[in-house]
Amino acid sequence: MSEKAFQDYYPDQLSYCYGCGRLNATGLQIKSYWQGDETVCRYRPRPDHIAIPGYVYGGLIASLIDCHGTGTAAAAAYRAEGRSMDSEPPRRFVTAALPGHSRRPTPLDAELELRGRVKQLKGRKVVIAITLSAKGELCARGEVVCVQMPDSFLSNPV
Amino acid sequence: MSEKAFQDYYPDQLSYCYGCGRLNATGLQIKSYWQGDETVCRYRPRPDHIAIPGYVYGGLIASLIDCHGTGTAAAAAYRAEGRSMDSEPPRRFVTAALPGHSRRPTPLDAELELRGRVKQLKGRKVVIAITLSAKGELCARGEVVCVQMPDSFLSNPV
Repeated sequence: MSEKAFQDYYPDQLSYCYGCGRLNATGLQIKSYWQGDETVCRYRPRPDHIAIPGYVYGGLIASLIDCHGTGTAAAAAYRAEGRSMDSEPPRRFVTAALPGHSRRPTPLDAELELRGRVKQLKGRKVVIAITLSAKGELCARGEVVCVQMPDSFLSNPV
Repeated sequence: MSEKAFQDYYPDQLSYCYGCGRLNATGLQIKSYWQGDETVCRYRPRPDHIAIPGYVYGGLIASLIDCHGTGTAAAAAYRAEGRSMDSEPPRRFVTAALPGHSRRPTPLDAELELRGRVKQLKGRKVVIAITLSAKGELCARGEVVCVQMPDSFLSNPV
């Protein structure tokens, strides 16, 4: 894995996302890294991230898939352009669609491992396929349709 | 609207969900109600529920859609059986699939209104279509595929 996470390269004004912003003190602050041609994110749910006793609530799963997806989209865009994530102009993505499917209940007492794979990268659209596993078993899949933010937004945030 | 929310009828041991459990002190504690043939849930995001400045992060949207969906599925199951939500046996649902689509960024400075509609109710499976609006505009849609928990689970929680 690389040392610095994708999310650590996001511009400050875009680093407040509840799921992945390093500057959101109460958020999840997930971290994603390249591992060969895949990306990986590991997250340990908190006890209050419960759905029914022993299992993770779906909103957390969706959050992790979403933010690992947009992070992977950004990293893939830089990689496709053959430049590092700290070079200009910045590339950041928002989510247009997030279909998720559970395979089995996700246990609360385990580290979750998300793996991302670029399924499509074309123009401003990137589609990332994500798997979420715990204890070595596939628990959920998601496909994140990411759309690149306009450059104007990145230089002139609201 | 009825006085008591769907979630207030859930058995104690199933009331710790981060999204909808009334006993999860740090959770969202959403409340859903019938309004004619639709269900409604209103939720005011917290400032830290941010994605990019001014907008709600996708994980919150997914959480609200998910929990309003399973709550609507439970309420619809009781209604289909012609009995109140405090009668036995309890009916509770888990999410099998949660496809969500954004229409426009969801503003952070508004109350969000979710509306649920029963799309299919057959055997142990209930499909709920959800819309999420803010300031009178549709921001996201979701379709929650809910599967009824086994009775054994309800009487013998892990």
